[in-house]
Amino acid sequence: MAPKFVSFVHGNETRYGLVAAGGVVDLSARFAARWPTLQHVVADGAFAALAEAGATLGPDLPLADIRYALPSLAPEKIICVGVNFPDRNAEYKDGKEAPPNPSLFPRFMRSFTAHEHPLIRPPESEQLDYEGEIAIVIGKPGRRIAERDALDHIAALTLANEGTLRDWVRHAKFNVTQGKNFDRSGAIGPWLVPYTDEAQIADIALTTRVNGEVRQSDRTSRMIFSFRKIINYISTFTTLVPGDILITGTPTGAGARFDPPIWLKPGDVVEVEADGIGLLRNTVADEA
Amino acid sequence: MAPKFVSFVHGNETRYGLVAAGGVVDLSARFAARWPTLQHVVADGAFAALAEAGATLGPDLPLADIRYALPSLAPEKIICVGVNFPDRNAEYKDGKEAPPNPSLFPRFMRSFTAHEHPLIRPPESEQLDYEGEIAIVIGKPGRRIAERDALDHIAALTLANEGTLRDWVRHAKFNVTQGKNFDRSGAIGPWLVPYTDEAQIADIALTTRVNGEVRQSDRTSRMIFSFRKIINYISTFTTLVPGDILITGTPTGAGARFDPPIWLKPGDVVEVEADGIGLLRNTVADEA
Repeated sequence: MAPKFVSFVHGNETRYGLVAAGGVVDLSARFAARWPTLQHVVADGAFAALAEAGATLGPDLPLADIRYALPSLAPEKIICVGVNFPDRNAEYKDGKEAPPNPSLFPRFMRSFTAHEHPLIRPPESEQLDYEGEIAIVIGKPGRRIAERDALDHIAALTLANEGTLRDWVRHAKFNVTQGKNFDRSGAIGPWLVPYTDEAQIADIALTTRVNGEVRQSDRTSRMIFSFRKIINYISTFTTLVPGDILITGTPTGAGARFDPPIWLKPGDVVEVEADGIGLLRNTVADEA
Repeated sequence: MAPKFVSFVHGNETRYGLVAAGGVVDLSARFAARWPTLQHVVADGAFAALAEAGATLGPDLPLADIRYALPSLAPEKIICVGVNFPDRNAEYKDGKEAPPNPSLFPRFMRSFTAHEHPLIRPPESEQLDYEGEIAIVIGKPGRRIAERDALDHIAALTLANEGTLRDWVRHAKFNVTQGKNFDRSGAIGPWLVPYTDEAQIADIALTTRVNGEVRQSDRTSRMIFSFRKIINYISTFTTLVPGDILITGTPTGAGARFDPPIWLKPGDVVEVEADGIGLLRNTVADEA
């Protein structure tokens, strides 16, 4: 089974560790001097060494005792791909064919919260919606990365709920920036799974459930723009650097596509799950 | 005259200083232990103290000897406002009224270069265009900042050339991300001018020249969305933090609006100038 590198809060400190046998091996306690955060681990290509070291150790804390934190990465950029599953393009009902290039928009880290923390519905909108996605973390820098080399630039995999305030996506003449960037409206987690093999992402199931009901379900083999293409295309204009996060698109079935739309409301439980990566779970709460 | 805080490279180090009497007072030499970068100066609200200290000192280096660097800020986010001068909206010829809210898009710091460095035209496009703009640097954090308080959150002013690859702005179904984020396609600088008074921005001239010819010329009093409104609106969805940069929109007259369009070409000189802030000058070069 692939190792899982989790960031968590213990005392008042954000630490990282390895999930094993119902608990967490506290790697920060042993390796913080060399790799203070997962950003350092990613930049230094140290997942394999840490996984090996951690495998010989028993858990220091029961999983039930930790408070999850966002992966302790310092992404220079987080870039999301819009409209990347076939039926999603049809959902727009604009009569347009699937576009030749991926639609892209940045999100800021503060628009995300961690596993098991609530997604925040702000007082400005009742149209909070989910989008379950697979996120890749860049490990090796590059510009104009060829598709054949693209996967070598992935350090780790994780999940994202790309929570969206739908009315704020169309608040202005152009661009979705504001509807995609309300503080803590989305989630990333629960942990990072080191990337080692294309089979981890080539054809895996990606599912989103709300209160246990399946709302989105598709397979990565059906993505319009492959992981290779996404890395190739984005690196055409911007240099990718370690810690960058690319969020690769959501299957059909977001709440906005129901008639009438079904928005998330306080108390709802949203789960995003992908084979071999994990399950990202969040409740929904009104902003305090 | 307002003090000018410049970042520059000396030896192999990026330093900061105060422009005075044809030279630069090297503040890093004296204050780097307390404030290692301009990000620390901004976060600590230290411009006034440093300006006072610097005023008693003569220049350490002639201006002609320094190599300009991007302001040594670590912006969590750089957010640009699209379509913010009346005639710019008309330029889109889509028959739509000025929108109720500003169009926003993020840029990454690596999409900018410093004063006196070339704007880079990538091999992927010949449609490099200029957009002269005023940029504000956030000094005081805040969420849902009221318009009446908004200007208190500004630490400094600078200029931006929001260089754009026009065909890549419409490369996909949605969003301008890629056309706005080619590495070093735009510029920020030449320095930071501390913000102290609304008169610095309320009604100042903003001009862009290409090879000496005026292409864009307008006044900030004509902005559709005022500085107050921009800060208020953006902080509705995201918490603004010290070092964040907001780029506030360009007047009519970009090269794309000529018939036929006039794109920038290698050797062109682009100057963006605003009263009391400075003059940002860049040549254009093909990517090496």
